[in-house]
Amino acid sequence: MKIKVLDNILKANNKIADANRELFIKNGNFVINLMSAPGSGKTTLIEQTHKSLDSALKIGVVEGDIETSRDAERLDRLGIPVIQLNTGHECHLDANMVSTALPHIDLAAIDILFIENVGNLVCPAEFIIGEDAKVMILSVTEGDEKPLKYPLMFHESKVCLINKIDLIEHTNFNLEEAKSNAKSVSPHINLMPVSATTGKGFDVWVDWLKSSFEKEIKSRKEN
Amino acid sequence: MKIKVLDNILKANNKIADANRELFIKNGNFVINLMSAPGSGKTTLIEQTHKSLDSALKIGVVEGDIETSRDAERLDRLGIPVIQLNTGHECHLDANMVSTALPHIDLAAIDILFIENVGNLVCPAEFIIGEDAKVMILSVTEGDEKPLKYPLMFHESKVCLINKIDLIEHTNFNLEEAKSNAKSVSPHINLMPVSATTGKGFDVWVDWLKSSFEKEIKSRKEN
Repeated sequence: MKIKVLDNILKANNKIADANRELFIKNGNFVINLMSAPGSGKTTLIEQTHKSLDSALKIGVVEGDIETSRDAERLDRLGIPVIQLNTGHECHLDANMVSTALPHIDLAAIDILFIENVGNLVCPAEFIIGEDAKVMILSVTEGDEKPLKYPLMFHESKVCLINKIDLIEHTNFNLEEAKSNAKSVSPHINLMPVSATTGKGFDVWVDWLKSSFEKEIKSRKEN
Repeated sequence: MKIKVLDNILKANNKIADANRELFIKNGNFVINLMSAPGSGKTTLIEQTHKSLDSALKIGVVEGDIETSRDAERLDRLGIPVIQLNTGHECHLDANMVSTALPHIDLAAIDILFIENVGNLVCPAEFIIGEDAKVMILSVTEGDEKPLKYPLMFHESKVCLINKIDLIEHTNFNLEEAKSNAKSVSPHINLMPVSATTGKGFDVWVDWLKSSFEKEIKSRKEN
């Protein structure tokens, strides 16, 4: 019974995700569902990505948070188009919540739309919201065993940014162990050590963004 | 309709939580529902607490994780009685899950039972599981604004341990700002800066544990 209810919820969600996706395709957006634990550095990553892209691609953001609009205000101060969603008691974004934000953002003026999910390593991975790719952040202060403890999110993500690499010497985080754990639950995941505060490693991440954007837009034109 | 379903779920949960609590009272257990984001140091905190208590009080642990039994194995190696719960897709423990673990642990041999919840700052705060107190960890690497972004967990917790204080100089975490944010959503919360790796600040935490245990056991005898 419980499974059937969940099944129906996911079916309804996927229908709305398809409608979101149509809108993204119409507007030429490459869309990233950005997920991580609380405090892993999602907003700082978007700030540093904006800086590293240096206007090569225009980004926009849908900010998901239980409460407050602090993250949206940070991005707004940098001139990034952003709309805040407050989920209240919901621990994740679903396609319907995202759909309510979209009329309030000028999608036609954006190349890459980041949808910053609620800080949570569990439920956000269960819902598609119309994205081209799920991307996650694991910060080194969280521990190298996290892929084994939260396998679904690693499994669903095309990229895992290993953030706060500047702090690694102060932790017992083993980078090779983390990579091997991530590959064991998600063999094709792209692992990118970065520091969102210093910008270290962002050349690889920005290259991935640019080539994924171009590949996706090209493939849409061919279809 | 949605609210009614949730309401019924919580009512059923609370009934089982009452039954768990009866068992805890019968066995003289003081029970802590330990919550935090993933990687904030819940298991390390229990290890250091065990060391700092130095047999003054006997602890036991119910370990909640989506997957793996790594944390339970760590505690077992220290001789701490522990039972692992794997929640699969569930992002929190509820009273029923906890009730399934209790027959497998010798409660009569334990003074303080830690129930280590799934790493998540949202849903664990919504469910009582029969505990005397909710205690949470915020680590300095997560940021000082977290009380404002996840207010329910701070509001429900009697104690917030501000962990990884040994890393504070490498972050932009402002301790006074964090305390003020926590007090603004939870005026009576006890804030305790600690380092679970070095043991710094554990005198205050262990004093709180001992006095809360004694007070609770005394009050049960009077009733």
